[in-house]
Amino acid sequence: MFFTFHNTIELLGILAFGVSGALSAMQKRLDIFGVLVITFITAIGGGTLRDMLIGSLPVAWILDLQAITTLLVAYLLALFFNKYIRLYTHLLFWLDTAGLALFCVVAIDKGIAFNLHPMVCVALGTITGCFGGIFRDVVLNEIPYVFRKDVYASACIAGGIVFFGLIHFIDDRNLISILSGVVIALIRIGAKYFGLQMPDIYGGKKS
Amino acid sequence: MFFTFHNTIELLGILAFGVSGALSAMQKRLDIFGVLVITFITAIGGGTLRDMLIGSLPVAWILDLQAITTLLVAYLLALFFNKYIRLYTHLLFWLDTAGLALFCVVAIDKGIAFNLHPMVCVALGTITGCFGGIFRDVVLNEIPYVFRKDVYASACIAGGIVFFGLIHFIDDRNLISILSGVVIALIRIGAKYFGLQMPDIYGGKKS
Amino acid sequence: MFFTFHNTIELLGILAFGVSGALSAMQKRLDIFGVLVITFITAIGGGTLRDMLIGSLPVAWILDLQAITTLLVAYLLALFFNKYIRLYTHLLFWLDTAGLALFCVVAIDKGIAFNLHPMVCVALGTITGCFGGIFRDVVLNEIPYVFRKDVYASACIAGGIVFFGLIHFIDDRNLISILSGVVIALIRIGAKYFGLQMPDIYGGKKS
Repeated sequence: MFFTFHNTIELLGILAFGVSGALSAMQKRLDIFGVLVITFITAIGGGTLRDMLIGSLPVAWILDLQAITTLLVAYLLALFFNKYIRLYTHLLFWLDTAGLALFCVVAIDKGIAFNLHPMVCVALGTITGCFGGIFRDVVLNEIPYVFRKDVYASACIAGGIVFFGLIHFIDDRNLISILSGVVIALIRIGAKYFGLQMPDIYGGKKS
Repeated sequence: MFFTFHNTIELLGILAFGVSGALSAMQKRLDIFGVLVITFITAIGGGTLRDMLIGSLPVAWILDLQAITTLLVAYLLALFFNKYIRLYTHLLFWLDTAGLALFCVVAIDKGIAFNLHPMVCVALGTITGCFGGIFRDVVLNEIPYVFRKDVYASACIAGGIVFFGLIHFIDDRNLISILSGVVIALIRIGAKYFGLQMPDIYGGKKS
Repeated sequence: MFFTFHNTIELLGILAFGVSGALSAMQKRLDIFGVLVITFITAIGGGTLRDMLIGSLPVAWILDLQAITTLLVAYLLALFFNKYIRLYTHLLFWLDTAGLALFCVVAIDKGIAFNLHPMVCVALGTITGCFGGIFRDVVLNEIPYVFRKDVYASACIAGGIVFFGLIHFIDDRNLISILSGVVIALIRIGAKYFGLQMPDIYGGKKS
């Protein structure tokens, strides 16, 4: 049950990030295999880095076909429903936010299973949530979106703090995962729709 | 004998990719140590990522000096015969194609040795063949060539499918490796000289 | 005592690279969490890659909070003393040089502890010293500084050769580490202040 729960949210995250990666690649007009590679990198990159860092090798998608199958589904969805999905930019934002929240809490939980320090778990969650998108943008030769327009890393860090705060009060780690994930999603959504911004450290307009 | 066979084709791949990496770096007019680093990344990057993903650590070139020696040879070749090699752009294309085919089949075979699923083996072969070049281009601040002008990943995937098709009919894995490698090379060569292209999914001119 | 010595110089390296990463990110006007991520990548990236290559997993910073704590200190220092540190460009150059030398010799020593061949140890030291900065520049979408303006990789390689030369004459590895580190630093400083340059392989002006 525990595994099933985490498996499911990880696969949902892969699906969400996969579609977002494929659409980004199509905006750059890559050929269909270029789109496939970017889909792969975006959906799998964060979790792959996480597993390489903690030494959970071979990395998850190599042992388990579910991940590759899910990202192929994301790829085909993006390919065939390209026009329709584009109309739903909002849907994409929601999917991407879901992916971030899901990946982050799964990684924190994996860190706890490896007996890592809370601070390391939060770092791991943030890395897992953010690096799929960072790899995507680096390969597409752009400054990662993460660093520019959005409270992305900060939402992960806040969610991680909530996770370790709740652990003292709630026994059910699945419930904690859901609550922390909701916090991450709400921060990102709040930032987008209510114009929350990072404190300005430059004393002026951003370039 | 088996190891020797695979060792040899892996080293030939390192040589081919090493020369191509060094020439790319010299086109960007990096200094001689910059050229060395790019040679290293291009020749060793794909196999290194493969080994880190499947947990074959330390990665191959750390345990075995042949790889580093081969890439130093590639580096020196490119450095001293720079002008002459440039004249043979066709030779370079052939070397690069050979590297792609060689790396891809070696990785598929390594995946089988790790008892991985065929789909994962094909993914691993494609990654190993493509990521040396991707790393090179990312570090040199360009959109990876792989995604743009060439049937690169697609040739690997097709070769991988052929590999697992032949496995039911032929016992000799070395022979299968050679045949699959030839298929990969032929697809890439065919694409270049006969103008094969990926299906256009954008309904118009590529940018 | 041995561990303490290496631990200390590794932490000093993280501090130096962390500050340099944070300042680079602030020059690009990233938000405060973007600056944090770049600080992280720059300070930890080289050592992380080293550990992933040799299979020393989980990577060092995951098991040991000192690294993360040190980089948070570097981050806060850069954030709060931004203006003052900028005035000391020279200080930054010295810190960065120290980081390079420290990381390089620690990695060579770690390679010897893993019984690796001297040539591999030197490669490992060079990678550890250079890749934090390479990752930083790649993510910030620039051609790595390492390849352009400085004798960076070459100083590491020279220091590594000195390390393995001294090993025949001196028993105390800490002393060897210090001497090799001083050589690396002196080469880089000499190159900057006395205009040492790589031999020109292009027969003309650099672009």
